[in-house]
Amino acid sequence: MINNTVKQNKNIGRLLIKCPDKPGIISTLSNFLFEHDSNIIESSQYSTDPQGGTFFIRIEFHCKGLAEKSDQMEKDFQVVAQEHSMDYQFAYSNERKRTAIFVSREPYCLMELLWEWQNGDLETDIVVVISNHEGARAIVEDLGIPFHYIPANKDIRQQVEEEQIRLMKEYDVDLLILARYMQILTPEFVAHFPRQIINIHHSFLPAFIGARPYERAFERGVKIIGATSHYVTNDLDEGPIIEQDIERVDHRDSIVKLKKIGRQIERRVLAKAVKWHLEDRILVEDNKTIVFR
Amino acid sequence: MINNTVKQNKNIGRLLIKCPDKPGIISTLSNFLFEHDSNIIESSQYSTDPQGGTFFIRIEFHCKGLAEKSDQMEKDFQVVAQEHSMDYQFAYSNERKRTAIFVSREPYCLMELLWEWQNGDLETDIVVVISNHEGARAIVEDLGIPFHYIPANKDIRQQVEEEQIRLMKEYDVDLLILARYMQILTPEFVAHFPRQIINIHHSFLPAFIGARPYERAFERGVKIIGATSHYVTNDLDEGPIIEQDIERVDHRDSIVKLKKIGRQIERRVLAKAVKWHLEDRILVEDNKTIVFR
Amino acid sequence: MINNTVKQNKNIGRLLIKCPDKPGIISTLSNFLFEHDSNIIESSQYSTDPQGGTFFIRIEFHCKGLAEKSDQMEKDFQVVAQEHSMDYQFAYSNERKRTAIFVSREPYCLMELLWEWQNGDLETDIVVVISNHEGARAIVEDLGIPFHYIPANKDIRQQVEEEQIRLMKEYDVDLLILARYMQILTPEFVAHFPRQIINIHHSFLPAFIGARPYERAFERGVKIIGATSHYVTNDLDEGPIIEQDIERVDHRDSIVKLKKIGRQIERRVLAKAVKWHLEDRILVEDNKTIVFR
Amino acid sequence: MINNTVKQNKNIGRLLIKCPDKPGIISTLSNFLFEHDSNIIESSQYSTDPQGGTFFIRIEFHCKGLAEKSDQMEKDFQVVAQEHSMDYQFAYSNERKRTAIFVSREPYCLMELLWEWQNGDLETDIVVVISNHEGARAIVEDLGIPFHYIPANKDIRQQVEEEQIRLMKEYDVDLLILARYMQILTPEFVAHFPRQIINIHHSFLPAFIGARPYERAFERGVKIIGATSHYVTNDLDEGPIIEQDIERVDHRDSIVKLKKIGRQIERRVLAKAVKWHLEDRILVEDNKTIVFR
Repeated sequence: MINNTVKQNKNIGRLLIKCPDKPGIISTLSNFLFEHDSNIIESSQYSTDPQGGTFFIRIEFHCKGLAEKSDQMEKDFQVVAQEHSMDYQFAYSNERKRTAIFVSREPYCLMELLWEWQNGDLETDIVVVISNHEGARAIVEDLGIPFHYIPANKDIRQQVEEEQIRLMKEYDVDLLILARYMQILTPEFVAHFPRQIINIHHSFLPAFIGARPYERAFERGVKIIGATSHYVTNDLDEGPIIEQDIERVDHRDSIVKLKKIGRQIERRVLAKAVKWHLEDRILVEDNKTIVFR
Repeated sequence: MINNTVKQNKNIGRLLIKCPDKPGIISTLSNFLFEHDSNIIESSQYSTDPQGGTFFIRIEFHCKGLAEKSDQMEKDFQVVAQEHSMDYQFAYSNERKRTAIFVSREPYCLMELLWEWQNGDLETDIVVVISNHEGARAIVEDLGIPFHYIPANKDIRQQVEEEQIRLMKEYDVDLLILARYMQILTPEFVAHFPRQIINIHHSFLPAFIGARPYERAFERGVKIIGATSHYVTNDLDEGPIIEQDIERVDHRDSIVKLKKIGRQIERRVLAKAVKWHLEDRILVEDNKTIVFR
Repeated sequence: MINNTVKQNKNIGRLLIKCPDKPGIISTLSNFLFEHDSNIIESSQYSTDPQGGTFFIRIEFHCKGLAEKSDQMEKDFQVVAQEHSMDYQFAYSNERKRTAIFVSREPYCLMELLWEWQNGDLETDIVVVISNHEGARAIVEDLGIPFHYIPANKDIRQQVEEEQIRLMKEYDVDLLILARYMQILTPEFVAHFPRQIINIHHSFLPAFIGARPYERAFERGVKIIGATSHYVTNDLDEGPIIEQDIERVDHRDSIVKLKKIGRQIERRVLAKAVKWHLEDRILVEDNKTIVFR
Repeated sequence: MINNTVKQNKNIGRLLIKCPDKPGIISTLSNFLFEHDSNIIESSQYSTDPQGGTFFIRIEFHCKGLAEKSDQMEKDFQVVAQEHSMDYQFAYSNERKRTAIFVSREPYCLMELLWEWQNGDLETDIVVVISNHEGARAIVEDLGIPFHYIPANKDIRQQVEEEQIRLMKEYDVDLLILARYMQILTPEFVAHFPRQIINIHHSFLPAFIGARPYERAFERGVKIIGATSHYVTNDLDEGPIIEQDIERVDHRDSIVKLKKIGRQIERRVLAKAVKWHLEDRILVEDNKTIVFR
């Protein structure tokens, strides 16, 4: 009944590049791929300033027998990259990212991700769910995903994080999703997973940074509430924003009602951000994201 | 060619009330109006807590010969109001509010208001426009509205505000709209016009309070920008929010582009807030608005 | 783990009325309720034309010991109703509506409803799920809800509908939700459940009435797709619209992608419509709904 | 005071191409531009199917001294185009399109376009406004734009269109905008301006094709209304859709109110469509548009 296999061509590769802008880069890249039997099927680019700014590009390409050819392709690309001072990254659709989900008491974001994943809409293997509550165990284990209960509070933070890091290594995790995980992560923990942790914050950042955003939105009397998905950095709720969305509210909406409305926003915002990350659509520059949707 | 007369029934009255909630208030009010030959045509209410909270109601009623009867009605109502500890306010559609608009260099919010007003969509007399720039004079005077140029900067703030207050009195102003007026108003000035000043702030408050919100939105890399219309209080951008709206943006949008997109949001948000104020649809409680749309 | 009890005051009643508009109705109603020890906690009204149109009102009231008093109240109300030619309906929060859900192959709308219900957001008892596919059995039965598999096709339509009607009676169903039930219902079937069947149509009605709306939206090259929840009448997709919503799409979105995006819209639109119905917020007049949100 | 000059680099060119998809096209194009001293500053592409579908690309490039080099560039490009069976079109930012606006009684769409144009947001010369009403003359002529009054009705349609076509030629018009021009255009007229006429229709197409869409939206009881901007073809309201947008409405909104709300939607939808056309962001294929925003 569970269908989490994305029916996709195994011969799809993606190339993400950041480099100084100058004439001829696209020509160079398209020649390189053409010479490596690859056909560009999607290409998106952005330049901070065509005259001497920074250039970003995401290329999705098709290459027959890619699995056998990718090593040589990457090796050959080093020359190009060096010549143009490129930061770059290859990704392959047949090497699915391995994802861990952290969750606390509220399961709705977890549920949305599991649901999208079962539908084949998330190009990943969900390899483990970790929670400081037992509530989600049955749902997770029913899907054949290992569930680890690690009680957490600020007094035992260090040992909890050590255990979490151990599990991340054991499960060889590429992406860590905080799906309403309500414990603070230390800078030490975050440092292990640069640009690999995606969080959902239940406000329209930078409004209502920190705790109790719905309560504070209610206090302030805003007419719109929102949610923000972002990469986690050491500064609380200050990491690069991936996606945001909102809903209209009014004076009749109690804090309880705001939370109900907000749940719907959080679910869809997090699911979009995760999907884009898994499809290698996000580049990060100077605490901002470039999302090639 | 200019049609700024709202074709409305002259016999329409509005009653706004705030009082402690208890059983029987609606019964009392509807009886009162029925006995005063008035028919309720629109009624909206809100209670913070049906058991002992605060009750708010806006009633729009029709009464034949209202202009002749309103004095007696208001006099009679004092008894009801006292018995139920009501804060209340009567308004009449044939007594149009007198509005002043303050504007600086950017005319687009002023233009939107003038346009809505010419279409008969704003139930008001625009009696004066005051600006610290000459740019809008022709447009304003062409519509037969007095235009006063008062140069402003922080060194002459006191004398500027004295002149502005003098003009507000001279023109007998009920509502003062800051349509992108970029000078700070002192608490002394604001104190003259409690809940009579509506501002448009070019961000989604409480995000980006203060100066240069588009620049800061760009810096932060938000995926949505917004605008907020609010009553002006002594705390900068902290007054009761009337309306907010947003538009989606992305990494390609420069600060110039954000400003262009934002202009459209500002225009419609301010126009809505002003319209609701003029139709007596807004009650203020504890720095929050109750808008009976 | 399942929490489908709405924590609500048992002493809440609702009164929905439609009648010719004339002065004094609200006064009459509020007096009636006041005299029957009831306090109005929410009241919404609408008049097609204050001078001689049709008047609609929804009143939510609190009355201590309502369960014991409601019979007398309803009996007394007959006099009022007759005098003012009122169509009316009383509802009580402690008498939860009994809901059946019909579903075909695609479970996502069913899932959303079950999820909202488990969260206590749907004020109902879901008493049975009927499907022409076995796929959803486990999910439904895990929640303790009876699941009936009735294979269906156009050749056996009559006997299928007879069995469905038998089950509706057996389970004493008040509301029937078509959560992506892809079989046509005959006028005979529909006639058994006037204004008791809610459907979700996967287009922005009246655009793309009938079959394959996503395919036709793709063909037409629309830039926005939508979903519509409506009461079912004998005219296909022509019943009174309860709620609609949309999402932006573009030329890159294939039919498969449109369906994925559409799923999200369908889920939230249907859930809202069902919620409003269960809270007695919907009045129907002339194939249009009045929704007192 | 009027600033309708877009401050843009004169050395910007755009190349729009449609051709059969096959490997190497991007490489070919980027090499061609590189060899012609041009740097790609923006590039967007779309393929109906990477394996053998149709390929669309829009390239914006910078080339020093472009005005002097463009003839040779276009001549050289013929070889490339022939080899790859390309439909293509070059455009240059220093050759502004010449725009005519047709308007009837309602001026708001015209006003929005003039306003955007004065702000420098529309990359065009508005060379003439033609109307079957005199109302907009003063506004148009104040901006130095010729205004032609041509009374129109169905009895004199042929001679009206002959006069309009004569004026289009006299003013050498590239783009014709129907900004709420309420007369039907004959197929003969439309045939003169293939993909050069942009209309705004006041509904969410394909809902409410034809006359009186707001009235019909009101009758149907929709919860959302919209507007659609499209290229005009011989089939009424059936041309390729460029942009659509919507606003939420409810049972309280009269036809007059729907029209007021709709005006705001029409204004912004038409302005966006026109802007994209002027920036050569739209390709048309099979009655659908590909908009490279």
